[in-house]
Amino acid sequence: MRAVVMSAAQTVEVLDVPDPTLTGPDGVIVEVEATAICGSDLHLYHGMLPAEGVHPGHEVVGRIVEVGADVRRLDLGDRVLVSGVVACGGCSSCRRGDPIACEVTGPIALGTTGQLDGGQSELLAVPGAELFCLKVPDGVSVEMAVLLTDILPTGFLGAQMGAIQPGDTVAVFGAGPVGLMALACAQLYGPSKILCVDMVPERLERAASMGAVPIDASGKLGALGVLEATDGRGADVAIEAVGHSETITDALSSVAVRGRVSMVGVNVSMDFPFPMALAFLKALSFRAAFAAIPSTWGELVPLVQEGVLDLGDVFSHRMGLSEAAAAYELFDARRDGVLKVLLDPSR
Amino acid sequence: MRAVVMSAAQTVEVLDVPDPTLTGPDGVIVEVEATAICGSDLHLYHGMLPAEGVHPGHEVVGRIVEVGADVRRLDLGDRVLVSGVVACGGCSSCRRGDPIACEVTGPIALGTTGQLDGGQSELLAVPGAELFCLKVPDGVSVEMAVLLTDILPTGFLGAQMGAIQPGDTVAVFGAGPVGLMALACAQLYGPSKILCVDMVPERLERAASMGAVPIDASGKLGALGVLEATDGRGADVAIEAVGHSETITDALSSVAVRGRVSMVGVNVSMDFPFPMALAFLKALSFRAAFAAIPSTWGELVPLVQEGVLDLGDVFSHRMGLSEAAAAYELFDARRDGVLKVLLDPSR
Amino acid sequence: MRAVVMSAAQTVEVLDVPDPTLTGPDGVIVEVEATAICGSDLHLYHGMLPAEGVHPGHEVVGRIVEVGADVRRLDLGDRVLVSGVVACGGCSSCRRGDPIACEVTGPIALGTTGQLDGGQSELLAVPGAELFCLKVPDGVSVEMAVLLTDILPTGFLGAQMGAIQPGDTVAVFGAGPVGLMALACAQLYGPSKILCVDMVPERLERAASMGAVPIDASGKLGALGVLEATDGRGADVAIEAVGHSETITDALSSVAVRGRVSMVGVNVSMDFPFPMALAFLKALSFRAAFAAIPSTWGELVPLVQEGVLDLGDVFSHRMGLSEAAAAYELFDARRDGVLKVLLDPSR
Amino acid sequence: MRAVVMSAAQTVEVLDVPDPTLTGPDGVIVEVEATAICGSDLHLYHGMLPAEGVHPGHEVVGRIVEVGADVRRLDLGDRVLVSGVVACGGCSSCRRGDPIACEVTGPIALGTTGQLDGGQSELLAVPGAELFCLKVPDGVSVEMAVLLTDILPTGFLGAQMGAIQPGDTVAVFGAGPVGLMALACAQLYGPSKILCVDMVPERLERAASMGAVPIDASGKLGALGVLEATDGRGADVAIEAVGHSETITDALSSVAVRGRVSMVGVNVSMDFPFPMALAFLKALSFRAAFAAIPSTWGELVPLVQEGVLDLGDVFSHRMGLSEAAAAYELFDARRDGVLKVLLDPSR
Repeated sequence: MRAVVMSAAQTVEVLDVPDPTLTGPDGVIVEVEATAICGSDLHLYHGMLPAEGVHPGHEVVGRIVEVGADVRRLDLGDRVLVSGVVACGGCSSCRRGDPIACEVTGPIALGTTGQLDGGQSELLAVPGAELFCLKVPDGVSVEMAVLLTDILPTGFLGAQMGAIQPGDTVAVFGAGPVGLMALACAQLYGPSKILCVDMVPERLERAASMGAVPIDASGKLGALGVLEATDGRGADVAIEAVGHSETITDALSSVAVRGRVSMVGVNVSMDFPFPMALAFLKALSFRAAFAAIPSTWGELVPLVQEGVLDLGDVFSHRMGLSEAAAAYELFDARRDGVLKVLLDPSR
Repeated sequence: MRAVVMSAAQTVEVLDVPDPTLTGPDGVIVEVEATAICGSDLHLYHGMLPAEGVHPGHEVVGRIVEVGADVRRLDLGDRVLVSGVVACGGCSSCRRGDPIACEVTGPIALGTTGQLDGGQSELLAVPGAELFCLKVPDGVSVEMAVLLTDILPTGFLGAQMGAIQPGDTVAVFGAGPVGLMALACAQLYGPSKILCVDMVPERLERAASMGAVPIDASGKLGALGVLEATDGRGADVAIEAVGHSETITDALSSVAVRGRVSMVGVNVSMDFPFPMALAFLKALSFRAAFAAIPSTWGELVPLVQEGVLDLGDVFSHRMGLSEAAAAYELFDARRDGVLKVLLDPSR
Repeated sequence: MRAVVMSAAQTVEVLDVPDPTLTGPDGVIVEVEATAICGSDLHLYHGMLPAEGVHPGHEVVGRIVEVGADVRRLDLGDRVLVSGVVACGGCSSCRRGDPIACEVTGPIALGTTGQLDGGQSELLAVPGAELFCLKVPDGVSVEMAVLLTDILPTGFLGAQMGAIQPGDTVAVFGAGPVGLMALACAQLYGPSKILCVDMVPERLERAASMGAVPIDASGKLGALGVLEATDGRGADVAIEAVGHSETITDALSSVAVRGRVSMVGVNVSMDFPFPMALAFLKALSFRAAFAAIPSTWGELVPLVQEGVLDLGDVFSHRMGLSEAAAAYELFDARRDGVLKVLLDPSR
Repeated sequence: MRAVVMSAAQTVEVLDVPDPTLTGPDGVIVEVEATAICGSDLHLYHGMLPAEGVHPGHEVVGRIVEVGADVRRLDLGDRVLVSGVVACGGCSSCRRGDPIACEVTGPIALGTTGQLDGGQSELLAVPGAELFCLKVPDGVSVEMAVLLTDILPTGFLGAQMGAIQPGDTVAVFGAGPVGLMALACAQLYGPSKILCVDMVPERLERAASMGAVPIDASGKLGALGVLEATDGRGADVAIEAVGHSETITDALSSVAVRGRVSMVGVNVSMDFPFPMALAFLKALSFRAAFAAIPSTWGELVPLVQEGVLDLGDVFSHRMGLSEAAAAYELFDARRDGVLKVLLDPSR
């Protein structure tokens, strides 16, 4: 089959590779119908994680073409969306949809480390399929199905960890794909106002069109913009959806007393300069996590089906798998108003 | 001054009565600018509560015209809204805005029992004024200020006690003023769908215009309508905003396993026939309460100021205090599309 | 094999019956080593539920002697404890340990309706074995393992639904086996005081020895005793572990404002006379449910292993399966200080 | 009157100073009967905070000898305990017992900055007395009353922010006075096991006598000890009660996936090296705060009255106010098994 392969940092190729085989009796093989490029794929692309030889891609929707012997609740031909993170598939954490806390293998992001190949390819092997695949529910578009594999659950986690109360002011740092998901999910918790901080004009416009107050951090600190917009009080909740040291600091500086900072923008520093004095003075709560994707589907699917969450237009570009190199380059450069790229493996 | 007086059941008069005096050094006198008739005033009107001689009215907005000696954070001329329920004003429950749990006097509804006169009048005496009055905040209309004195907090409580989770289906029983407040407040918690059950066509239309799925219970049981609209599963949460035995039974029958029934429609039965077997099978949670009004202002006011809660058009009729008898009659009869009546004491 | 059979109301026999067979590929057969008689078995015994021909028993510990084809995480010879309630074993509710909310079969209590035979017998067939069996963990005695199959999770649920806060006063109604479990579990939530209401002197003594203040309801209403012991304020939380109308009324009458009543004593009335007026005045929260047994093991097992919950001496009598008729008679009559009877199928 | 004065870093004197006057009409003057030295007083002592001229002391129990004009619920002669942190006394945060979130003055620690003199003296002026003083309740000893002014609420906050669930393993870092309070309060939440990490043998012994598993961090990293004691899994909750960089790092390193780190040991770094990568992998929750002391009394007082929290023997030494210099020196040096020193202003 054809698959995207990271042949070296910043070098993406589409190569012929062997077809995947079942990971075990609880696995399936999915013929990929739609996949996407995620901001975290750029960590590989930039060599921040060891990338050579990796088959990336963890946002996959497709049809089941092979079924393991133990799989009883999925059939050949089922259209499924696949959790971007999987795990052992047997422990009690996995069974309740939380591969992050898996006690056996720990979480495994598809297409990240080579441990399991990813899905920017024609076929994908998925372990623990009954837990990590979901039949695409009625009323869920392909685009929304792709979003349910990773970034919508991640944005939802951002909102959840913020413990938003009705009437709160929420500041979302970053209006990229994950930030916009967080913004939409923050609206589920009844805030009186959402501020969205970014530096890209068209992203701020999109945030504004979704009901947020845009704050342009290109000329000043984002935290300062948040303080100005809250009469100096600060936001009740800050959701960090970028992962840069500067935005994390901004988020921590932007909240009021008893503020909650929720971080879903990935940062892998081991010595981030944390303002402990501020944490005490503000009685701060700080949380960071990867999403336990399958555990979020029960809440998110009806919201998608009923149109409360209608975010498919985040896909600004649709390209063939064969154009993956160009797609990565475009996405990385943030050119042409790109927000998120959908890849079609049939092309 | 002039005041509405319940001279007998179903007999409302506007009489000249002595001006009120301060209840104590922590009290104020408010010159009433706007007041309203509440569904619970009809309990008096119908003689379900002892009414003779009562001065009703517990939804008041006005200006302070006299200030007790201990009152330091309110001034002559301040425009305030007044909690419809007050209490001792000194215990720790009162201080945190919860007169319902007052350890000294217990809750006292203005204008209900004669214990404290109500505010369908030109002047109103308010005890514990620093706790039970709120200066009308910038950006809050008179109508919204009146709603903040009772029925918006009550509807908010209905939603809160339902413990609505994102994605839930919520059934609101009753599309009268309180039901519509509950409907609007339920939307603060991210449900995927709200069903609203009533029998009055124009009330159902209004619920639909607010985003709910209307269910007409005139020809069939409301619970049946909820079950049909949820593929037989039932709602996750039911909010009862009527108080009739039939609608309570309906609400209890309409929820799914682990359903939560939240009751803000007042019912004073001491032997309501409760389906205990159902409660066990459904792992039901049932809550009923009066709102701790001042404790809700911190959350509700910013939502009103930012326009998230914009419900002033619930006032279908504006009349002078002198027309109180006609206003009660109209409100009671549900004629002329009446939903809620605002009374102007200057007329 | 030999099994207890309800041949008619109040008639229990030990009969030779056919050995059970696997319920399906996800099931196992357990050779029973210890089982017990539960208060709910007496509902069958008294004909309150249709009992004829039922093989009762839902508290089972034993060794696996046959394993279905799909079962991968249990082996022949494993000693397991079995959830007294099972269900489809495949849906997302079952997978997270909650058979009560099973979307396919709903909850099935072993040995209650004939739908699935119970375990007062030499062998027991268990469906969904990976979910509903737990290998007896190191440091858990046979007695504690039996308690983990039903009544300890049930008592834990009683405490959980009470939402006990540190410093609260808790009233437990009933000092039978479930009540004592609830009492022990209530202590996990930091109450300042636990009152325990019963009429049997030795049960009250046992409650006292566990740290509760005993309240003898033989001469007066239990609620009155609770009010006296709380200076008229009432308890913050009442846990009902009996199921009689009188004790439910007592529990509802015994709580303070914002009180929470948690009910685990089974009652199947469809028109229990519920004091709705009281519910409003007290801002009451009322919950009733059967325990989602497997979902509690993660919390309860370490508490048992570390000796925080050490309740094995609730078994006042040990008898052979062949003595089942006498055991039922004894347990029903509450003679000889009986609290709970352990049955040994090898005898 | 006589008062302890920080004349320079590490120089404590008892001087004659002018008697305090009422801070305002809502204030009182308290004749101090018992006060104590807190670990945070050592920050002043060591010059980590500007100390010159400060009158320290924020743990005070005494009798009211003067009452402001607005104070209605306290009388001359009342014995009270005083919150170690006060604030404006009028805003809604103060009114619900939360001076930390005071919107007017912010929190003011008595005797820390010179803003308000402290209570290691014969007399103390307390603002907002109805909110920040509590009449010593029946059944509360002087020692427990002193603990209720600061370190017991602080330890309680440590446990609360940990969100301990029944069955959890909790690691408390530090067995000094605050750590022991946290340990006792953690037991209110039903953990299966509490590990207590320190390096002082007698403090570890005391922790062990309170039911914790002692972990001696003198020869190895505390986190390593926690991992060993949890079979490599880590604790569910870590409570940091020291404030040193090393112990904070230890606490962060010692928790399991979905671990919660609660910090009450004060640290004022603005660039603490925070392991962000670890936070993501562990889905960490981190909270730090000062206690909202008056808001905790409702929960803590009944626990003290009923003897659930019986911690008075934390006072290892009793000395006269005149011996303050020696007392500070002893407490700072951790000599003679000192744990906490009670000062008697009459001596």
